[in-house]
Amino acid sequence: MSPAPRSVDPALPIGVFDSGLGGLTVVKKLLEQLPHEDIIYLGDTARVPYGDKSRDTIIRYTREDVRFLMGFGVKAICIACNTADSMARLQMEAEFDVPIIGAVGPAARKAVKSTKSKRIGVIGTSATVRSGAYPAVIEKLDPTCRVIQQACPLLVPLVEAGRFHRGDVVVETVLHDYLLPLMEEEIDTIILGCTHYPLLYDIVADLLPEAALICSGFASVDFLRDKLAETGTLNPQKGTGSHRFFVTDAPERFAKHGSLFLQTPVLDVCEKVTLGGC
Amino acid sequence: MSPAPRSVDPALPIGVFDSGLGGLTVVKKLLEQLPHEDIIYLGDTARVPYGDKSRDTIIRYTREDVRFLMGFGVKAICIACNTADSMARLQMEAEFDVPIIGAVGPAARKAVKSTKSKRIGVIGTSATVRSGAYPAVIEKLDPTCRVIQQACPLLVPLVEAGRFHRGDVVVETVLHDYLLPLMEEEIDTIILGCTHYPLLYDIVADLLPEAALICSGFASVDFLRDKLAETGTLNPQKGTGSHRFFVTDAPERFAKHGSLFLQTPVLDVCEKVTLGGC
Repeated sequence: MSPAPRSVDPALPIGVFDSGLGGLTVVKKLLEQLPHEDIIYLGDTARVPYGDKSRDTIIRYTREDVRFLMGFGVKAICIACNTADSMARLQMEAEFDVPIIGAVGPAARKAVKSTKSKRIGVIGTSATVRSGAYPAVIEKLDPTCRVIQQACPLLVPLVEAGRFHRGDVVVETVLHDYLLPLMEEEIDTIILGCTHYPLLYDIVADLLPEAALICSGFASVDFLRDKLAETGTLNPQKGTGSHRFFVTDAPERFAKHGSLFLQTPVLDVCEKVTLGGC
Repeated sequence: MSPAPRSVDPALPIGVFDSGLGGLTVVKKLLEQLPHEDIIYLGDTARVPYGDKSRDTIIRYTREDVRFLMGFGVKAICIACNTADSMARLQMEAEFDVPIIGAVGPAARKAVKSTKSKRIGVIGTSATVRSGAYPAVIEKLDPTCRVIQQACPLLVPLVEAGRFHRGDVVVETVLHDYLLPLMEEEIDTIILGCTHYPLLYDIVADLLPEAALICSGFASVDFLRDKLAETGTLNPQKGTGSHRFFVTDAPERFAKHGSLFLQTPVLDVCEKVTLGGC
């Protein structure tokens, strides 16, 4: 049974969380698409990455992330992290009374709309792929679609090491090796199922020149915008919204690396918090 | 003031911990060098890696690791993880009454003995390098030595992805880029300052054919063996010691990947524990 609909104050902030830095690509899109919204961002940098951990551990961490954001009375929570979304969203929806926007559903819907060959590729972390969340959602939307998944555990470290530029033999070789099975399956649509992957967009496009590329985080922002508009809960303020950033490890390091993703110096207001009773 | 020396029962086990899997290269060496010892191993796989986290967070995690091993009445604790050793060992020695064997000191002593040019290279995680532990110890042992450090954040993910073989353009390019500044400084000795790096031994040797290679974890096992012999606390049992493995995330995944490091199927006795009150 669904909980009774809440009366939501449109002036409340939106909560966004990620295992670390990657979610800032989603924040960047949010700032463009929903400039009047107040945003509370949480990056669980003391326990990053989630992508190679187990379901139980990911659910435990995600619960603590959601609970933290609930403390700000958020009107919606955007799970930027595909891993947390894939492994823990259903559980969180059962436990918390707040709209939770994932990345998987919106990206899957875009992919199903885009594909003509009915062969869709998905790249993500080991945990995202292991969860089977993308194939489950896509095959429910269109049972004639075939989903070819590839776990890409090296892509997050490579992006964070700054190795995401065209012409870098390391990232190009790694991506080629990961994408080869998808090329052979002649997919015409690929979901970049991790918030770090927008930085690899050009190289993926070079390797799959015929395919439509769908960035999961951007799809979730489009979905959130539509949802807020439909329910009349867009923030009515005229000016730019306020943005607070929280991390579970040293804020200085987050601020330094965060500019890679956000491409603005907005991170001077980053605070440290401790989760998990540790 | 040092604490009063404890009377130690030689039959007690040795505790070993690491942020994850890498410490199993140390266990492998322990099994060879000290086959009669009982070993309790802890891998903090729910929070791995430590190498790109802050000092405060690493100290907090290390404290929980040490406290867990102390619960088994261990006669000594071997910090397999260079990051934890570099950032947190002094703090742990102040807090706990047990001999704590790190990797940095033994490896630094071997390097100082080995070098003729007085130019020593150190590769490790970002946190190990940032800690300055290796230069501090080496320059204390021999102030005429110059230490050239290089943080190598991609090496752990590459090894864990199985990309550590000669002829792999990815790992060879990454290692070449990391080692170039060390080559230019004409080091004659290099410390592999991370438990994952023994798997990269051959490629490092190819790139630095004139240099002596020192595996930090192996140096710490030699040091532990000498220390137990000197203090008459080698385990007197005739048979092979017992070995227990604990992890903070799913044991199945640890067992699967662990064989990469241990190269024996001893991991059928791996148990899960929760640290940090979470």
